[in-house]
Amino acid sequence: MKPQSWVHPCGFAPKNESTQESFRIEYDTFGELKVPSDKYYGAQTVRSTMNFKIGGVSERMPVQVIRAFGILKRAAAEVNQDYGLDPKIANAIVKAADEVAQGKLNDHFPLVVWQTGSGTQTNMNVNEVISNRAIEIMGGKLGSKIPVHPNDHVNKSQSSNDTFPTAMHIAAAQEVNEVLLPGLKKLQNALEAKSKEFSQIIKIGRTHTQDAVPLTLGQEFSGYVQQIKYGVARIESTMPRVYQLAAGGTAVGTGLNTRIGFAEKVAAKVAELTGLPFVTAPNKFEALAAHDALVELSGAMNTVACSLMKIANDIRFLGSGPRSGLGELILPENEPGSSIMPGKVNPTQCEAVTMVAAQVMGNHVAVTVGGSNGHFELNVFKPMMIKNVLNSARLLGDVCVSFTDNCVVGIQANTDRINKLMSESLMLVTALNPHIGYDKAAKIAKTAHKEGTTLKEAAVKLGFLTSEQFDQWVKPKDMLGPQ
Amino acid sequence: MKPQSWVHPCGFAPKNESTQESFRIEYDTFGELKVPSDKYYGAQTVRSTMNFKIGGVSERMPVQVIRAFGILKRAAAEVNQDYGLDPKIANAIVKAADEVAQGKLNDHFPLVVWQTGSGTQTNMNVNEVISNRAIEIMGGKLGSKIPVHPNDHVNKSQSSNDTFPTAMHIAAAQEVNEVLLPGLKKLQNALEAKSKEFSQIIKIGRTHTQDAVPLTLGQEFSGYVQQIKYGVARIESTMPRVYQLAAGGTAVGTGLNTRIGFAEKVAAKVAELTGLPFVTAPNKFEALAAHDALVELSGAMNTVACSLMKIANDIRFLGSGPRSGLGELILPENEPGSSIMPGKVNPTQCEAVTMVAAQVMGNHVAVTVGGSNGHFELNVFKPMMIKNVLNSARLLGDVCVSFTDNCVVGIQANTDRINKLMSESLMLVTALNPHIGYDKAAKIAKTAHKEGTTLKEAAVKLGFLTSEQFDQWVKPKDMLGPQ
Amino acid sequence: MKPQSWVHPCGFAPKNESTQESFRIEYDTFGELKVPSDKYYGAQTVRSTMNFKIGGVSERMPVQVIRAFGILKRAAAEVNQDYGLDPKIANAIVKAADEVAQGKLNDHFPLVVWQTGSGTQTNMNVNEVISNRAIEIMGGKLGSKIPVHPNDHVNKSQSSNDTFPTAMHIAAAQEVNEVLLPGLKKLQNALEAKSKEFSQIIKIGRTHTQDAVPLTLGQEFSGYVQQIKYGVARIESTMPRVYQLAAGGTAVGTGLNTRIGFAEKVAAKVAELTGLPFVTAPNKFEALAAHDALVELSGAMNTVACSLMKIANDIRFLGSGPRSGLGELILPENEPGSSIMPGKVNPTQCEAVTMVAAQVMGNHVAVTVGGSNGHFELNVFKPMMIKNVLNSARLLGDVCVSFTDNCVVGIQANTDRINKLMSESLMLVTALNPHIGYDKAAKIAKTAHKEGTTLKEAAVKLGFLTSEQFDQWVKPKDMLGPQ
Amino acid sequence: MKPQSWVHPCGFAPKNESTQESFRIEYDTFGELKVPSDKYYGAQTVRSTMNFKIGGVSERMPVQVIRAFGILKRAAAEVNQDYGLDPKIANAIVKAADEVAQGKLNDHFPLVVWQTGSGTQTNMNVNEVISNRAIEIMGGKLGSKIPVHPNDHVNKSQSSNDTFPTAMHIAAAQEVNEVLLPGLKKLQNALEAKSKEFSQIIKIGRTHTQDAVPLTLGQEFSGYVQQIKYGVARIESTMPRVYQLAAGGTAVGTGLNTRIGFAEKVAAKVAELTGLPFVTAPNKFEALAAHDALVELSGAMNTVACSLMKIANDIRFLGSGPRSGLGELILPENEPGSSIMPGKVNPTQCEAVTMVAAQVMGNHVAVTVGGSNGHFELNVFKPMMIKNVLNSARLLGDVCVSFTDNCVVGIQANTDRINKLMSESLMLVTALNPHIGYDKAAKIAKTAHKEGTTLKEAAVKLGFLTSEQFDQWVKPKDMLGPQ
Repeated sequence: MKPQSWVHPCGFAPKNESTQESFRIEYDTFGELKVPSDKYYGAQTVRSTMNFKIGGVSERMPVQVIRAFGILKRAAAEVNQDYGLDPKIANAIVKAADEVAQGKLNDHFPLVVWQTGSGTQTNMNVNEVISNRAIEIMGGKLGSKIPVHPNDHVNKSQSSNDTFPTAMHIAAAQEVNEVLLPGLKKLQNALEAKSKEFSQIIKIGRTHTQDAVPLTLGQEFSGYVQQIKYGVARIESTMPRVYQLAAGGTAVGTGLNTRIGFAEKVAAKVAELTGLPFVTAPNKFEALAAHDALVELSGAMNTVACSLMKIANDIRFLGSGPRSGLGELILPENEPGSSIMPGKVNPTQCEAVTMVAAQVMGNHVAVTVGGSNGHFELNVFKPMMIKNVLNSARLLGDVCVSFTDNCVVGIQANTDRINKLMSESLMLVTALNPHIGYDKAAKIAKTAHKEGTTLKEAAVKLGFLTSEQFDQWVKPKDMLGPQ
Repeated sequence: MKPQSWVHPCGFAPKNESTQESFRIEYDTFGELKVPSDKYYGAQTVRSTMNFKIGGVSERMPVQVIRAFGILKRAAAEVNQDYGLDPKIANAIVKAADEVAQGKLNDHFPLVVWQTGSGTQTNMNVNEVISNRAIEIMGGKLGSKIPVHPNDHVNKSQSSNDTFPTAMHIAAAQEVNEVLLPGLKKLQNALEAKSKEFSQIIKIGRTHTQDAVPLTLGQEFSGYVQQIKYGVARIESTMPRVYQLAAGGTAVGTGLNTRIGFAEKVAAKVAELTGLPFVTAPNKFEALAAHDALVELSGAMNTVACSLMKIANDIRFLGSGPRSGLGELILPENEPGSSIMPGKVNPTQCEAVTMVAAQVMGNHVAVTVGGSNGHFELNVFKPMMIKNVLNSARLLGDVCVSFTDNCVVGIQANTDRINKLMSESLMLVTALNPHIGYDKAAKIAKTAHKEGTTLKEAAVKLGFLTSEQFDQWVKPKDMLGPQ
Repeated sequence: MKPQSWVHPCGFAPKNESTQESFRIEYDTFGELKVPSDKYYGAQTVRSTMNFKIGGVSERMPVQVIRAFGILKRAAAEVNQDYGLDPKIANAIVKAADEVAQGKLNDHFPLVVWQTGSGTQTNMNVNEVISNRAIEIMGGKLGSKIPVHPNDHVNKSQSSNDTFPTAMHIAAAQEVNEVLLPGLKKLQNALEAKSKEFSQIIKIGRTHTQDAVPLTLGQEFSGYVQQIKYGVARIESTMPRVYQLAAGGTAVGTGLNTRIGFAEKVAAKVAELTGLPFVTAPNKFEALAAHDALVELSGAMNTVACSLMKIANDIRFLGSGPRSGLGELILPENEPGSSIMPGKVNPTQCEAVTMVAAQVMGNHVAVTVGGSNGHFELNVFKPMMIKNVLNSARLLGDVCVSFTDNCVVGIQANTDRINKLMSESLMLVTALNPHIGYDKAAKIAKTAHKEGTTLKEAAVKLGFLTSEQFDQWVKPKDMLGPQ
Repeated sequence: MKPQSWVHPCGFAPKNESTQESFRIEYDTFGELKVPSDKYYGAQTVRSTMNFKIGGVSERMPVQVIRAFGILKRAAAEVNQDYGLDPKIANAIVKAADEVAQGKLNDHFPLVVWQTGSGTQTNMNVNEVISNRAIEIMGGKLGSKIPVHPNDHVNKSQSSNDTFPTAMHIAAAQEVNEVLLPGLKKLQNALEAKSKEFSQIIKIGRTHTQDAVPLTLGQEFSGYVQQIKYGVARIESTMPRVYQLAAGGTAVGTGLNTRIGFAEKVAAKVAELTGLPFVTAPNKFEALAAHDALVELSGAMNTVACSLMKIANDIRFLGSGPRSGLGELILPENEPGSSIMPGKVNPTQCEAVTMVAAQVMGNHVAVTVGGSNGHFELNVFKPMMIKNVLNSARLLGDVCVSFTDNCVVGIQANTDRINKLMSESLMLVTALNPHIGYDKAAKIAKTAHKEGTTLKEAAVKLGFLTSEQFDQWVKPKDMLGPQ
């Protein structure tokens, strides 16, 4: 009854794994293993697939990490050449690493996140793929480790313990800069345009979800703009520590088996390759044993999630209706809303936003738990942590774009409805306080509420003022700021 | 620089989406759309892929949900036949739905989790695929909606609002029964075997991470057994509410447009098809508007995650070393541990367990946030919630199997080390309390600690007792239970 | 500039601590200490106040734990008498322990939660207070430890490691039974009464916050009833494991220094004293090293928090207005809502409910983190865990009572508003589907929406049916269930 | 059966509430109420105590919020005087507000956190207390509202909606500056001193909890220093947004009923009074409707909690023993560790740290949930949010001081043990790689491990090198950095 464990949830059957016909033999220190002939990876990768059958293909190490490793391995090879690595070997590594960085070899990275907590097996997967691809480039035989050895050459001056956190930071920084921040800024701009567009529309305010004094729709949107603007600032304020790279710390942070200057040169090379201001981490012990920088980044994304939840909730409630809701906003109709109810349109983009927000809050707890449970010289929740950080950054960035394009830019103010609600509001009575006092104003409001009349009707009926006075004193447009 | 959004993180390029050459035209109430010729889905599915470009292929709706929909649609078709649906149409739907249930049509479900919060688009994706496949079976033309209409026939007596939560419960219940509970029970059995195997090995206990009085290694493992055993009970205690199905509630829980008896019959049919004790939910309003049952299940999994974190932490610390750790357990060596340090073996299975535990805790918060934010007649965090619940169940179940097979069954007691630590322990002094009093016992312990001697040496030197008395009174095997 | 650390946040100055004039000298194995003359506690308690100046008086160990310890110490004394403890000493302990159980000696428990993670210092605080009070009862001298010794007599056959978790379970079980469950049941009953009261009021349904097909207000409330009813079931389903007591496990779970039968007898005695079905834990190793039972209970309360958040959100949105909101419910006016806006009434009880819900979700994460981080034979997050569990139980129970008394029982249906919204709703068009088909129905809805007319006006204008047919076919009361 | 609801968990019976003999009558717009004669608060405060019996005295609004309100009300009175408020009234308000700011009137603030989500009732509590105290100062009659009216004078130009968030930010900023940051810096300094003290002690490194290559104990501690140093930076990076005050926004953010310039002047005055760089919030709509700044600050504290959890875990494991643990550190003995086991000393300060860390993580989720659930112009989770933020800041700050004073400063290196473990370590074999190659090095390590000998013995026995060569090549002090 149980479904096949390794069927891909997204529908792609990884055929070459189950029905492989052609193998070569590779070995690691634990012995020989069959490796599919058409794959660049080697024995340690295969061994991991055997030992960690957890979650299936959809739980593979994020490609962003693999690409970041490509960048790092290229940088390391170039620096190693400065320290004496044979230029022919270095060049082949650089070329192969570039292919990894460009995502051309994604098929060769089958490992899941749920492996060793240091990411060692993914580092070895990378070393094996680059080694074999470089061997191929140089005309050698796959699996021979000659002339390019996965450990001695590709991993030279490195350890899993410093390369994996380096790849984590590269991947996180790229996702933030390529997906998250552009998405937030796009949304900020769209909200800002709406805030200006709506700057003259006076509407009822709501506090405690109850009617309150008026503000403009533009003012209301300006709060959203501020939230997103600060969201960008929050993300950016965490980046200085994300831009610090562990490379050069090797096994425990001391830098054993590296050369003086290696750390700084690799960071500079990565900065050059990515266009991002990476530097070497000032303390490698912290950089291996803790991932506070990712907890911090995740925390900033958690705050952004709160902002988005608030904004999306507001917009769907303000757009609720068409007849029985608040109805102040008209949201774009993107798809049929119901198979039963004709004409039903739902705020589906808002729903995607709020679901993403909930996910980011959950991811943040996973990152927090992982970040707090490191021991001694190495935190071993690395793959789990980076998976969640990347997921949050990607989902937030993508959903900002989707929300902007498919909802925000198309939002229209339902001015008839807005005016009607605003003019009927009992809270306008607040404007009478300076003229007739709080007590009489309260009596007017309560009378109008009880009898279902307008404030003006109640005020005149009670004899507190004339119709003309009412019109003169109760002007919503005079209630929009201090005096 | 930014990678193409829709490249699959796991390395499979969804070629037919990007290089599609052949289309047919389908339409929904919003207009015409091009649909790939080789796909069974229709216009509403295509429209969703255009409106929700969020997260990429790795964020697709879990296949477990799709398969559950297959079961549900088959059950509904059979019941609808009882209420008058043309048997030829019903049969074709049943056959097509079966293919969905078996995962044969997974390629035809491209939608991501981050869509409308009701899962309407996935329900329509299912309706479209089954409709077109049934049309094909009956010799009709894809996209014609004749003779099998996605709404009128496949979705008959249903709404997204009741089918999606029904599919959620079916999928969750199946994952629990097929993956989670078997995994937990396998681990429980393995731990129980170890507990028996180790029942005669007396070792030092540790409280506050400090030396304490002795217990047997078997007793220590018996605590783990109990945790997992209760974990099974915890999961099972939540299932009665997961076995309740929303089907029959349609749009808002009233059951508008269904027939009396439909709900009960569908639940019975689903129970029959799955072999699980599904029943119709006694209150459909609750079943649509809240997903407390999934929050509850997630909470039980969160507790199991705590248990696993504790057990895996213990095992890796007890197995730490080989020279400078506690060294009481010898863990199986599964793979090379380090590219720098020869002979290094790491507790990688424990690390996978603890990473999964952290993820499950995070997933639980996402489920909690989603579960708390429903409004009125419909909770619209459905896809996000089920994604996380299924992920937790799968990861926990898989990691239990991996941990059992690759670690627990191979754990050996390092009896030399255990005996050495135990016999050197100062806490054995506790056994002297009844004979010479707490104060003298304390003096012995402090003297031994200060001078680095054994308890016996200190005791004799202090003149509190003879060597023979010490041997007679300090017997660890008499310290293992009440008297 | 920094405020005095030990000023009580709630405004009570613990004067006798800062301006103490009279002391006696007590000692522990670390030396002598001054103890306030008017306090029953001794040296170890004083030492803890010196070593753990964390959080101030508001962070003291919850009195529920202290009271539970009183029950346990009484039970232990009675059982110890069976095993030979001098009846005079036992009687004095019983009497003193009773005073602790009744909360009469609360002033004598100054320790904060943030102490040793085993709660040892609170156990010793209890032992010292009971010892000194029993000495006083027997005419002895405070601090003399004669004739009642805190360790040898009050703590006889016990260890902090088994007594503290026993007190945790007693306290949690009592708070659940005395506060949480009664609160939930009271709310359930009140909601059920409203559900019946509102059973004939037909209203517009809302899905995705948008207008949908109708249901009765009673049906809507029946969903809330079901949520709370299941909440009670969820809490109750976790209690069997909370009713298991660790007493008898002593230091590491083996029961060293207890007598055979002690565990069972103590549990029976506690059951008798509390009227709750406590039993001895079948595995004491699990009972000391893990607190999964509290994580589980906390998880059930987390689910209840989700339910309450949903219900309170619905009620405040349905009660929003008075003019510009949904306005279907009229909530009781309990206090002035605004110092600026006359007549403003806010759903403040709903706000208290949702704030409590958020707190319970946070508490649950704290409990989860603590529960997952036990090591070897002892979890050392005990005080933190029980603080959060008790806080959640108390807040949930109290807020249910407050919400019921001050809001739910006084909720009125605004039937004019409900009828108006319902009759204007475009979603009633769904009833025409069987008569004129989905497409014509859709055209009616869209026309009415576009032109701002009623469905009937649009239907007649379009010529699809007569006014009489409309009245005959569109009957909301026929849309409330299956047919 | 239920215990009395309002008994104080910390043991102080709030006698004047239950056995009050003397009352005066005050009223609000809902009617008359009895107010205790010896209290300055008025009717709205009393009404809140009646409507919100939730949690009891230990759940009162934190005094830090009350004190912050004192500062704000003084600042507002001074600014209002500039805009025409009678100087005699202003002076009396200033004096009364000062008393509130100094904590002298704490007894007069009985309200709990679980009230209206805007904190309106606490704002009115403050207004009433200051009004009555100012009346008293001016010789008037308590409760008369003459000559100082709680709304018209004390609350002039203000609303609960802007004053409560202003008080939140003032309280949070003060707690951060007075408790949290000093605590962190103290700990940082103490760790830094230890790092220097231990700079020459070479020890075994541990990755995956397993033996690894060496580093110095000083290097290990330098990682902790870096974590705390960055923790300070993280907190500080969030403060610019915490220093922004909502005052001047009044009811919905527009500033209705204030004067132009009021906002800026109040912020400047608060800055002057507190010595902290407060400014007026650039967008008041955001400042009322969202509390992202507190979510952000809470997120930074969550990261700090991760750091502390890691450090405290390391220290307790490195200090585990005395015989059967890692035993590299000797932690100060602060109190007896066990009532059963003589001489047992536990890392209790580490336990307090880790419990606080777990609490802060939980608090952060509560803050996140509250922060994400604001609607329209007002977030109504204010009291809950600030309670948790203040709790986290206080607990973290206090526990850093306690941990530093009672543990860190007294930590000693157990150099004999450290040397022994280091010299026995098999991972030193790594130093042989450059000389005899990875494979032979591996063979030496595996032989030594299998036969239980030293590396040197195995190396010589295998004939790979001489004893002299071993001594020359394997020098831990050469393994501490790059070359």
